Amino acid sequence: MPVIDQQQIEIRVRYDECDPMGVVHHGAYLTWFEIGRTELIRRGGTSYRQLEEMGISLAVIEIRVNYKAPARYDDLLELTTTLEEVGRVKIRHSYELKRDDQLLTTATTTLACIGADGRPMAVPPQLIDAVPTVEHQD
Amino acid sequence: MPVIDQQQIEIRVRYDECDPMGVVHHGAYLTWFEIGRTELIRRGGTSYRQLEEMGISLAVIEIRVNYKAPARYDDLLELTTTLEEVGRVKIRHSYELKRDDQLLTTATTTLACIGADGRPMAVPPQLIDAVPTVEHQD
Amino acid sequence: MPVIDQQQIEIRVRYDECDPMGVVHHGAYLTWFEIGRTELIRRGGTSYRQLEEMGISLAVIEIRVNYKAPARYDDLLELTTTLEEVGRVKIRHSYELKRDDQLLTTATTTLACIGADGRPMAVPPQLIDAVPTVEHQD
Amino acid sequence: MPVIDQQQIEIRVRYDECDPMGVVHHGAYLTWFEIGRTELIRRGGTSYRQLEEMGISLAVIEIRVNYKAPARYDDLLELTTTLEEVGRVKIRHSYELKRDDQLLTTATTTLACIGADGRPMAVPPQLIDAVPTVEHQD
Repeated sequence: MPVIDQQQIEIRVRYDECDPMGVVHHGAYLTWFEIGRTELIRRGGTSYRQLEEMGISLAVIEIRVNYKAPARYDDLLELTTTLEEVGRVKIRHSYELKRDDQLLTTATTTLACIGADGRPMAVPPQLIDAVPTVEHQD
Repeated sequence: MPVIDQQQIEIRVRYDECDPMGVVHHGAYLTWFEIGRTELIRRGGTSYRQLEEMGISLAVIEIRVNYKAPARYDDLLELTTTLEEVGRVKIRHSYELKRDDQLLTTATTTLACIGADGRPMAVPPQLIDAVPTVEHQD
Repeated sequence: MPVIDQQQIEIRVRYDECDPMGVVHHGAYLTWFEIGRTELIRRGGTSYRQLEEMGISLAVIEIRVNYKAPARYDDLLELTTTLEEVGRVKIRHSYELKRDDQLLTTATTTLACIGADGRPMAVPPQLIDAVPTVEHQD
Repeated sequence: MPVIDQQQIEIRVRYDECDPMGVVHHGAYLTWFEIGRTELIRRGGTSYRQLEEMGISLAVIEIRVNYKAPARYDDLLELTTTLEEVGRVKIRHSYELKRDDQLLTTATTTLACIGADGRPMAVPPQLIDAVPTVEHQD
């Protein structure tokens, strides 16, 4: 399966994202993955905010995270977000989080596209058009 | 000024509310104060969720917190929430957070009542009626 | 594989755990699962706080969550936490979150036991003894 | 009183910082103010992380926030953090948060300098030297 869109962003670890172990709490990574998706959509020329204003939501329905090494307060991390697959109503992303050359965390998420009526809907053209080389898969 | 409504609740400190100093992050207390207000409203016979379903919001417009001693992970705390004042469109609460007999934190918040149109509105009767001995002040 | 320990707790959804979709943000569930684990350990007669004071940490190394239906603000949920497996250095839990009879979310987590030196260590007897019918598996 | 150090940073509003009202939860601003302080210290040539590694903490002991207008998801905000006063053991900052020309929020915080023994200590030279034109006040 070809990678159909990918982007790197920087994440600076916030103090309140860390816990008494002195490392980032495992929940904070989900917020970063969300930022990765948001910036990937923005690069495509639309924004998640605009989608929501049109009544379109992307609801997380599955998440898998493997924590290999801890991130720490004030670390400057590189998050690579990859759009792996666009189905009829679902979108799958993968994530790699690194500090310098060290791979800290990998993850995948599956989102479902939800319409204003709260029901699943086909991934809208605005979102697909935003992806340069998208290939439909289901 | 007479105290017009007051209630104690217990708060168990969550792991992710603590930071690398090993104590509760100063932001977490605001969430607890919000729970204190929510439970005070519930005791009055309505709920903040019902208010929102009627298009009524209570927006925080001012907050003051004094941190005297830190709370720690897994502490079982007692939060006293007091409705101090109900004005025409504003409500003022105060808070005292204790661990056993030690006073850890004091705070006050001011909320504005906002209607479905996003504009200030008079504090609704459902909320005032929820308060046993309310005395209007502005 | 026999279930070796299990417990239900109640979760009241907090306002700041919800997002602009009006439902609980997918990250908040991880915090609830952590509370589920914490209370399961407490029921066994020790506490995670005591473990940490002895230099023992339980680091999350894998998490998988399936979100089936959204939880909403002020919902009173039932979380069932099950200790599924205790290995030499790892512990696996599963989770079921319900609102009344509706299953909202299922999840599994894997924790690694980490010593004061930051390295994996054998799951300590205090933790195993806390589990009534634990059966070692690896 | 002369302003003794000041800096602007940009804040992009995260999705999980917003609540069901569709605006930023009042607690999220405290995290942003903390980032403002962190970046102000960094600009001075040291970092809060380095201070902590030396056993020096800056504990928030008072916070006052006035919320004038709501920030919204995906807003790009400008936060101005000002070091207002350096006392013997305390530091006071003020904050102004704007979206374009609109002032959304103002705040002040007071921090106490805490040593490795958990007791107040004099503001260390590393921190004062980091401030170009600091004038001691108490």
